[in-house]
Amino acid sequence: MYNKKAYGLGSVRSVIRELFEYGKQRAAEYGADKVFDFSLGNPSVPPPAAVEEAIIDFVKSTEPVALHGYTSAQGDQGVRKAVAEYINERFGTTFTADCIYMTCGAAAALTIALGAVVTPEIDEVIAVAPYFPEYKVFAEAAGAAFKVLPISKKDFQIDSEALKKMLTPKTAAIILNSPNNPSGVVYNDECLKEVSRVLGSYAKEIGHPIYIIADEPYRELVYGGIVPGYIPNFYKDSIVCYSYSKLLSLPGERIGYIAVNPEAADAKEIYLAVMGAGRALGYVCAPSLMQYVVGRCLRLKPDLEAYEKNRELIYGGLSKIGYECVPPDGAFYLFVKVPGGDAEAFSEKAKEYGVLVVPGDGFGAEGYVRLSYCVAYETIKNALPHFESLYEDFTRKCAH
Amino acid sequence: MYNKKAYGLGSVRSVIRELFEYGKQRAAEYGADKVFDFSLGNPSVPPPAAVEEAIIDFVKSTEPVALHGYTSAQGDQGVRKAVAEYINERFGTTFTADCIYMTCGAAAALTIALGAVVTPEIDEVIAVAPYFPEYKVFAEAAGAAFKVLPISKKDFQIDSEALKKMLTPKTAAIILNSPNNPSGVVYNDECLKEVSRVLGSYAKEIGHPIYIIADEPYRELVYGGIVPGYIPNFYKDSIVCYSYSKLLSLPGERIGYIAVNPEAADAKEIYLAVMGAGRALGYVCAPSLMQYVVGRCLRLKPDLEAYEKNRELIYGGLSKIGYECVPPDGAFYLFVKVPGGDAEAFSEKAKEYGVLVVPGDGFGAEGYVRLSYCVAYETIKNALPHFESLYEDFTRKCAH
Repeated sequence: MYNKKAYGLGSVRSVIRELFEYGKQRAAEYGADKVFDFSLGNPSVPPPAAVEEAIIDFVKSTEPVALHGYTSAQGDQGVRKAVAEYINERFGTTFTADCIYMTCGAAAALTIALGAVVTPEIDEVIAVAPYFPEYKVFAEAAGAAFKVLPISKKDFQIDSEALKKMLTPKTAAIILNSPNNPSGVVYNDECLKEVSRVLGSYAKEIGHPIYIIADEPYRELVYGGIVPGYIPNFYKDSIVCYSYSKLLSLPGERIGYIAVNPEAADAKEIYLAVMGAGRALGYVCAPSLMQYVVGRCLRLKPDLEAYEKNRELIYGGLSKIGYECVPPDGAFYLFVKVPGGDAEAFSEKAKEYGVLVVPGDGFGAEGYVRLSYCVAYETIKNALPHFESLYEDFTRKCAH
Repeated sequence: MYNKKAYGLGSVRSVIRELFEYGKQRAAEYGADKVFDFSLGNPSVPPPAAVEEAIIDFVKSTEPVALHGYTSAQGDQGVRKAVAEYINERFGTTFTADCIYMTCGAAAALTIALGAVVTPEIDEVIAVAPYFPEYKVFAEAAGAAFKVLPISKKDFQIDSEALKKMLTPKTAAIILNSPNNPSGVVYNDECLKEVSRVLGSYAKEIGHPIYIIADEPYRELVYGGIVPGYIPNFYKDSIVCYSYSKLLSLPGERIGYIAVNPEAADAKEIYLAVMGAGRALGYVCAPSLMQYVVGRCLRLKPDLEAYEKNRELIYGGLSKIGYECVPPDGAFYLFVKVPGGDAEAFSEKAKEYGVLVVPGDGFGAEGYVRLSYCVAYETIKNALPHFESLYEDFTRKCAH
């Protein structure tokens, strides 16, 4: 006797986690240098030295009962104030500490935000393909029906006319993820304006807000001077889910926040619903030491140089072999078109070469695989010949 | 437009959290020495020095990408192995790493364990009064109907005959919390045997297991040489939820575990359902640095001396004034009978004296207030005269 749905989620696991575990096993068996694991978005750049210094400094100089004690459920007041001020400086917004709710990373931020806006009556959540597969799990756990807007544009920007057709009076929220996992694409301002216009006008028609939940862990990982538009500046009824996992290379520490746009019609109620949803899910408070650490370190910039070098090497290298890739403006993912279109078969074949890539089917995009290039430069360099053999092997197979 | 249930949970908050926030405000207004806050179970004993040393040592000597990177969803393999071995040493059990799932504290452990065992058909969860009020929130969030076994015995042990009458074919689990919050009572072996017998025989009758979910954050906080029975040694279909919050004084760090009894009929399925429930709730992994820290520190013993001194002072002091208290064998709570029986009114009156105590109504026990004596010794000493005036004031009022 056990919950079958939970059992299903636990035994199938995410394809990504599955590959990650497979990679660890294979490395133990054949040696780490024989595995080229592009499966997981685990930052390869170490946290800035200031983060490690902050941890040690807090431990050495703060009264430990306070440092490791419960904070308020929504997070330490000082940390929330620092987060709000920083957002305002960057984006000219008017957040206060009471718009910020500290979370155990972006996944918690999403489950909590969805728990706050999905209601028994208004229960549809839309994701835009390609999308992070856990969105479906999180939305369904919040009791929502999960709908996917398929890819229709070649540059992976959002087709607002197609979006318009998907909206119903039961639409509660749309999740936007830019820079995008798995494609690395950044939605441009024109796209955000159009989406905001379509949502705003439809929301007016049906008489209740439709929320944009902006999932932004990759905001700071952008290349070539691109600045992703800040959703609250485009659309009032918005909630930002942020994580320091990628900015500060702390994915295992589970630290991030929810920022409820103070301009939202029901801003105060949404914030309280966020607190209630967090409580019901068992999130007592975000890890305290890490709250203080990110409060001190939130102005740091990531060391993009390593990712940029990786991006050039892998994008250039794969293109040269013959692979077609979506040009990535941000994050540390490359979305690669599979010769012949069978991503599952390609991912399986790749394993024979010790190369781990995630089939795109789970991201709502058939015929693609995702590569996380947050790995050592050497890993990419050594993997390229295998990608070449794989290409020849696989295209030959497809030709049969 | 927002989720009304989540909004309700967020705006009412727990009475405990409410008092905690009130205490912080009052301290800012009148000075910290004018507030005697017995509301929150925030350990007053600092973490053992070895914990702080472990944090610094891990940060200084471990490769930071590994230290702060994702662990497996169920937790680091080495840490889980260490946890399992320690349990086995202590209790003669046969746990393995694959029975252990690291969590963000006991609250997360409970929401996840409930998510794993509550099904749409078998959806009743029983708590034994007095009980930690968040059990209701967690059980209902997992889709369960929440039932309470009232207090019937003077020593607060469980009335197994009354429990028997509450069982139905829809009973999924019973939550046992020993040492108990709010009463400090430890269930004795005889009580655990009887409860196990009643549950086991009824489960056989209805043809599916009924789980005991043992919520054990206070296991190590016991006085006078008492050793609380280890549930898995009494009952096969059991799941232990543990937290290092109280043992290592790390409540803000959110670190604990779920241990699925390998003897349970569906042990493997339950463990996978635990993984699935954790995934659906947004728990990617437990905070990584703290996983490693508790893995190293799990053999430490808490510094009980301070709590023991506090316990004597407050139990003796209040009894001398005339208050009736349940003798506490563990945890750091004292459950005090309210003269006249109106706990809400008593708690309100106490505020006038700067004394913060939690009415027992929320714990399923009318006519009691809970005092957390995990405070400075001086706080208790200085509060006693106020408790005396309050007693006189309140009993006079009741006499009218």
